[in-house]
Amino acid sequence: MKCEIISVGTELLVGDTLNTNAQYLSRELSLLGIRVIYHTTVGDNPKRLEDVIKIALERSNLVITTGGLGPTQDDLTKEVVADLFGKELIQDEKVKEDLLQYFANREFVMTDNNLKQTFIPEAAEILHNPGGTAPGIMIKEQGKTIILLPGPPREMMGIFEGAVLKLIKKDRNKLVVSRYYNLSDIGESAAEDRLLDLIDVQENPTIATYAKMGEVLIRITANGNDEKVINGLLDKYEAIMIERFGENIFTFSRDSLSEAVGKLLIEKNVTIATAESCTGGLIASQLTEISGISKVFGMGIVSYSNEAKQKILHVSENTLLKFGAVSPETAREMCDNLQKISGADLAVSVTGIAGPEGGSEEKPVGLVYIGLNYKGNTKVTQWHFKGDRKIVQQKTATKVFHLIRKSVVDKGE
Amino acid sequence: MKCEIISVGTELLVGDTLNTNAQYLSRELSLLGIRVIYHTTVGDNPKRLEDVIKIALERSNLVITTGGLGPTQDDLTKEVVADLFGKELIQDEKVKEDLLQYFANREFVMTDNNLKQTFIPEAAEILHNPGGTAPGIMIKEQGKTIILLPGPPREMMGIFEGAVLKLIKKDRNKLVVSRYYNLSDIGESAAEDRLLDLIDVQENPTIATYAKMGEVLIRITANGNDEKVINGLLDKYEAIMIERFGENIFTFSRDSLSEAVGKLLIEKNVTIATAESCTGGLIASQLTEISGISKVFGMGIVSYSNEAKQKILHVSENTLLKFGAVSPETAREMCDNLQKISGADLAVSVTGIAGPEGGSEEKPVGLVYIGLNYKGNTKVTQWHFKGDRKIVQQKTATKVFHLIRKSVVDKGE
Repeated sequence: MKCEIISVGTELLVGDTLNTNAQYLSRELSLLGIRVIYHTTVGDNPKRLEDVIKIALERSNLVITTGGLGPTQDDLTKEVVADLFGKELIQDEKVKEDLLQYFANREFVMTDNNLKQTFIPEAAEILHNPGGTAPGIMIKEQGKTIILLPGPPREMMGIFEGAVLKLIKKDRNKLVVSRYYNLSDIGESAAEDRLLDLIDVQENPTIATYAKMGEVLIRITANGNDEKVINGLLDKYEAIMIERFGENIFTFSRDSLSEAVGKLLIEKNVTIATAESCTGGLIASQLTEISGISKVFGMGIVSYSNEAKQKILHVSENTLLKFGAVSPETAREMCDNLQKISGADLAVSVTGIAGPEGGSEEKPVGLVYIGLNYKGNTKVTQWHFKGDRKIVQQKTATKVFHLIRKSVVDKGE
Repeated sequence: MKCEIISVGTELLVGDTLNTNAQYLSRELSLLGIRVIYHTTVGDNPKRLEDVIKIALERSNLVITTGGLGPTQDDLTKEVVADLFGKELIQDEKVKEDLLQYFANREFVMTDNNLKQTFIPEAAEILHNPGGTAPGIMIKEQGKTIILLPGPPREMMGIFEGAVLKLIKKDRNKLVVSRYYNLSDIGESAAEDRLLDLIDVQENPTIATYAKMGEVLIRITANGNDEKVINGLLDKYEAIMIERFGENIFTFSRDSLSEAVGKLLIEKNVTIATAESCTGGLIASQLTEISGISKVFGMGIVSYSNEAKQKILHVSENTLLKFGAVSPETAREMCDNLQKISGADLAVSVTGIAGPEGGSEEKPVGLVYIGLNYKGNTKVTQWHFKGDRKIVQQKTATKVFHLIRKSVVDKGE
């Protein structure tokens, strides 16, 4: 099946918004064995929108649009598609009811323009939107399928992962199964290098690598008609992955490193406390994105100033004066004292220079010390991260999670 | 001038790569007053590539491609375009010299396939690539211009900011100016509702709204030949924006709310400290994304457990037992005590239930108390946020920044 993704919205064409929807849909559809052969982006202009939909329907069997389903004047996708297929827009009572409920739940006053979202092209299938007001819409005619999804990524994904996935799976009966291996502490090209022999001859299963800051996700996808055969294939490849990447694999899922580490801490019941300077709360904040983390995480300190380092973490004035705030000595006192204050099994500290200001020849931007006290053993490591402020902060957080995982896995709980 | 951007590469269609090039070019071209009306993405397939270039040349005056100029077999853009225009590819001695120099400088061994990059369509203009091996190429024929740029973002940008910008500026002299108004505490549809009379008749300037979690960005763009006339138009609209959105406008720029608040605190020299429970460090982390924030932000506490609330923030056991951790009383003690510990002008505290666990009938998921002590005056407010864990955390942080801004702006510094 050939698919085209059409993104609707002038904000994309003026560069205000990055088109993450097209990437998300492309990846998900590829996983399902559906070939995406074009992406098109068009503004909130009915004539041009009509033209691109016509072109797409000529060259693809499945067309998915995102954007232009909302309540405002320039939301036109549904109207253009209904016109193109010669369909009336009819108010749907169930959609209206859901909409009123949505606003009632939020104690928002509903402006009248919202009702526009309750009109659906006749004979179209309504795709429930679990996280917003505009439902998705599917129309099937003459061997072509067009699916209209809203533009806000969360709503688009919510409909895709629910209603759309169900429809696609019903439509085809080939099985597609993927397994994931998420690696840290290895670059993408190095990871790919170790897989070249497999990638070169890949057919079934296929192998893909995705790089994110400090993480490399490997996806192995097999398809067929028999689940047993598929899993046999995947087992064979899994053995190869473990052999080639053993210690780098931090999770056998798509979980990010921080998620995997949070779950590991919960599972092993290892309590943790954080003391952050240059990451400013990023590590604590990533930990607390994980539901249930309160079981093992109770205390985080953002000791941005020297005063906070002294007052809350009792770092000695002498250490700060003699070695400076960004030093292995300060990192060590931060985590050792934090351990005493919190009583946590694992206390981690970070002090560094995120930039762009504050660097010197001796202590350049990107210099970071990470202290880790696990069950009484303290280790301080020094790092040099490249990139702008946000990247240095993110890379530091990723490295901290990597070190936490290593400590807990190596020493057992 | 109408422009279309064509991105070439199968990695985009399978979702391996996010198309940041299209966004970058769109933004830069819009700023120059060139209207981008389509983005198209196509794989490394010569027939499809030819088709989309043909369509683009029909509907646009300027076509910019990115990708497919490199040394490998599947880099085909130059070949397809040369074919389409009936041009021979001729080896360019200067480009060859640059290429050999590039490898010599890096002490890399040059593989032979690199020489492919030295062949240029006859009569084309060569656009110097300051950061890579494949030069950009421009062909002008019959009132149409096509510019071929390489895919790696740094190389693409290097050529754009150098050779391409020079060509475009030489070509035109129309001015385009945009102004931004970023609003909080108002929904997108409500904001647009107040602008409908202007949007309905818009021509010059044009108005666009963009929604992000808890923020609505309005952009007003005017064009013309005379800077004074343009600014006069924009001044008139600015007065209308202030009249209609006054207190909702948190910045006259594209800065996010947290950035705007951080800069405000730095400018007014208002020192701040944070005590977070359910947001787990998110507020501190957003503050410390801002360069220079150390001038006003020294201390943040993530008091996730009751123990941390007692030990670090000295919340009384009695308060926690009698009213619970998620209560106005706890929020008040958290910020009042934090103020004393930190000595900050403004101390903010957050306690709530981010979910999905931990809710009850009396205290449901999404219930959040925000305490704000500014110059000795404490105010605690209660909120109910809907959404999943991450959304509740994000909405809480946004609300905190909104309240901080209001306090500082209302009371002056």
